[in-house]
Amino acid sequence: MQSGNEQAAEDAPAHAEHSDIYDDDGVVRASFLAHIGAAIADRDTLTLKGDVASLHESELGDLLEALQPDQRRSLVELLGADFDFSALTEVDEAIRLDIVENLPNEQIAQAVQELDSDDAVYILEDLDQEDQDEILAQLPFTERIRLRRSLDYPEESAGRRMQTEFVAVPPFWTVGQTIDYMREDKDLPDSFSQIFVIDPTFKLLGAVHLDQILRTKRAVKVEDIMHETRHAIPATMDQEEAAREFEQYDLLSAAVVDENERLVGVLTIDDVVDVIQQEAEEDLMRLGGVGDEELSDTILAASRSRVPWLLVNLFTAFLAASVIGLFDHTIERVVALAVLMPIVAGMGGNAASQTMTVTVRALATKDLDIYNAWRIIRREMGVGFINGIIFAMLIGTVAATWFSDPYLGGIIAGAMVINMFVAALAGILIPLVLDRYGIDPAVASAVFVTAVTDVVGFFAFLGLASWWFGFS
Amino acid sequence: MQSGNEQAAEDAPAHAEHSDIYDDDGVVRASFLAHIGAAIADRDTLTLKGDVASLHESELGDLLEALQPDQRRSLVELLGADFDFSALTEVDEAIRLDIVENLPNEQIAQAVQELDSDDAVYILEDLDQEDQDEILAQLPFTERIRLRRSLDYPEESAGRRMQTEFVAVPPFWTVGQTIDYMREDKDLPDSFSQIFVIDPTFKLLGAVHLDQILRTKRAVKVEDIMHETRHAIPATMDQEEAAREFEQYDLLSAAVVDENERLVGVLTIDDVVDVIQQEAEEDLMRLGGVGDEELSDTILAASRSRVPWLLVNLFTAFLAASVIGLFDHTIERVVALAVLMPIVAGMGGNAASQTMTVTVRALATKDLDIYNAWRIIRREMGVGFINGIIFAMLIGTVAATWFSDPYLGGIIAGAMVINMFVAALAGILIPLVLDRYGIDPAVASAVFVTAVTDVVGFFAFLGLASWWFGFS
Repeated sequence: MQSGNEQAAEDAPAHAEHSDIYDDDGVVRASFLAHIGAAIADRDTLTLKGDVASLHESELGDLLEALQPDQRRSLVELLGADFDFSALTEVDEAIRLDIVENLPNEQIAQAVQELDSDDAVYILEDLDQEDQDEILAQLPFTERIRLRRSLDYPEESAGRRMQTEFVAVPPFWTVGQTIDYMREDKDLPDSFSQIFVIDPTFKLLGAVHLDQILRTKRAVKVEDIMHETRHAIPATMDQEEAAREFEQYDLLSAAVVDENERLVGVLTIDDVVDVIQQEAEEDLMRLGGVGDEELSDTILAASRSRVPWLLVNLFTAFLAASVIGLFDHTIERVVALAVLMPIVAGMGGNAASQTMTVTVRALATKDLDIYNAWRIIRREMGVGFINGIIFAMLIGTVAATWFSDPYLGGIIAGAMVINMFVAALAGILIPLVLDRYGIDPAVASAVFVTAVTDVVGFFAFLGLASWWFGFS
Repeated sequence: MQSGNEQAAEDAPAHAEHSDIYDDDGVVRASFLAHIGAAIADRDTLTLKGDVASLHESELGDLLEALQPDQRRSLVELLGADFDFSALTEVDEAIRLDIVENLPNEQIAQAVQELDSDDAVYILEDLDQEDQDEILAQLPFTERIRLRRSLDYPEESAGRRMQTEFVAVPPFWTVGQTIDYMREDKDLPDSFSQIFVIDPTFKLLGAVHLDQILRTKRAVKVEDIMHETRHAIPATMDQEEAAREFEQYDLLSAAVVDENERLVGVLTIDDVVDVIQQEAEEDLMRLGGVGDEELSDTILAASRSRVPWLLVNLFTAFLAASVIGLFDHTIERVVALAVLMPIVAGMGGNAASQTMTVTVRALATKDLDIYNAWRIIRREMGVGFINGIIFAMLIGTVAATWFSDPYLGGIIAGAMVINMFVAALAGILIPLVLDRYGIDPAVASAVFVTAVTDVVGFFAFLGLASWWFGFS
């Protein structure tokens, strides 16, 4: 990274160290990989510990992903207690499972105690119940209770993503007392940006940002500078909804509370950033007709995950084919229709997918709501009509010239206007209706939209042609 | 929000206040909108100031977006100096420009001084040079220099997104001195999570997180607890690259330095979250064949932005049509070919777009690199082959039954295997090659991929049929 800024790289040794691992494209450097590979082959534990220990967890994660599966397992084995388990939160699920399932449960239990609770839960939640129980049983009581509680919350909830380490003080403490407490307490979380104020039953009263504490005189009471925690997150809230709260209110961290408004953890922005990435990825993948596939999935797993979508498309393709079948006599007489008909259907499909993409994204970000839905629908109808006219003229002219038949040009032009207009309507109405009925528009829109533009495209074009050539 | 947790809503008045503005779907409540609309119509400044002043900037932004354009302008006018300009960073570009261009430059200059510098730059950067200069001329000297400097960095660079307010101290200060300084200084940024350590020339030496300061005794020197700023961001770095640094290293804020390693600002995670959202959106929109369109664009703007992509598709559609044209004599004899051929092309297109989606996303997140490219290519070929066989058998059986012609079933089955396999190859190789040559695979992949699957689909199916029926 930061190539083209050589002076910076020279002045700051840290940069140079960083770029030891990645090349200019941000990919793990081949020489570094070869060096680690050789050390693994030689079982050279000393070199490995020296060169891998200084890596950031995400760098170690990238290294693991770049290694061969057997090298990966050997590296973890050779590093032993020096392997930083938090790197496992940075790799593909398949790689994580492969590594974890090759380790004895005792070693995992040992490692999990060193981790922040959110990282520990992230690793434990993918294991089967039996391994989970065995690992939890080997943890100290309080640790076990904490992790168990997080794991008991539903998947993809705030409770699963929260960190159970936090600083909480009573309201009557002074700023000075609070600072002294933090100076003495060795059991603080690794890093934090606010502290919470609670009553004796752990009920959340408020929060104070660290900069607020630093600006305030020692004698001031915490309750006098705390702010109301407007954005406390219920532990059962879906992580996507929690992420939206963070985005809307620019939060760095937020208290997570149970059903009795008691503080149970803290959700931090770094986890939320991962959630945001993940949700954006889900929308993209669903629009493309792929499920929760990961790059590390096997051929069979990937094949299986893609079949359902292709099956639905097969059904709609036969639907479109049967529309063509209605007009087989016309096609027999005017074979140019067979040549041109995919253009009408295809252009409609593309126009519809443009509208659909805009709509699905706007629904996901909540930019599209009842206040502007009608305006956007009207706009899309306008766009569909204008682009329909433009492309009708273009295609009509080309078709008329190609087959030396002005009537054919007119027919395809008419069909184009109809299909582009219907495409625009389908592109916005189908996602809106799916969303209204609680179906994720990213998953299902594309199938319906293509079906509509194929069927309408073929029907309009071949229907107009049959009507015209039937009379001529 | 947080419906279904009524007890929480009762216990925490803050929640209730929050839900005053949004209904259960997270949309601005109709009654609130009507109330504000009425107050605007009555020019009831008192009610407006009372009800709008307590809103968070993002809530005010949502309110602005829900109002009619003329109501919007009236609201800003009626609120006058009480209008929180930071809300403008939360709305569509078109709405922002509409509001700002309706205000006198003096009022903007006044308002800009109240804003954090990053918000000020965000609003100023969209204005034309003349207005920008006029507004900057009315600012106090230091403010002007700061904003000018940010605006001089390239668009979408870290320098544009950074905040120029930060806390910096010399290395020889003690923790106690630092805390006292923060208690006295009234000119601190609104919130911050770390302070920076600089030499007299403003060269960046390190940084200290606030929690570190709070844990440390007063007598300790700052230089003894500061950490190296490994992740200092050059001001000219692209915002997307900066966002990737934040994600990889879980940063909350990072120093921004100029070409001489001097501290010029700080980039914070809330701005980075916006960048991440924006970049994910760009990929999605590009894959769907839409450019930088916004929901507030006019019909003509939206139409224009979509025409280029449709034009390219038109060209490839004619290419596919000309392939069909090669076989018009065969279609005249066996009209069933015209009925079935869109199925072959369409299924290939869908299979290819699945592979393409996975590839484009993996390239964007840098999960796909030289270390696994071959493995992923082999995997996709395997998936294409397996799914090709599955759907060949399905389609072959249906087609043979439909047209009572087992040979036709065999021909379409053969064409399906070929096209699904080619689709898989095109779906991964085209984005990879585009990426290699520095072209954004999200923009251009879909065109090429569809062209390949259409041409190959029609050619394989009609070619096989011509060969077979030519001999029978």
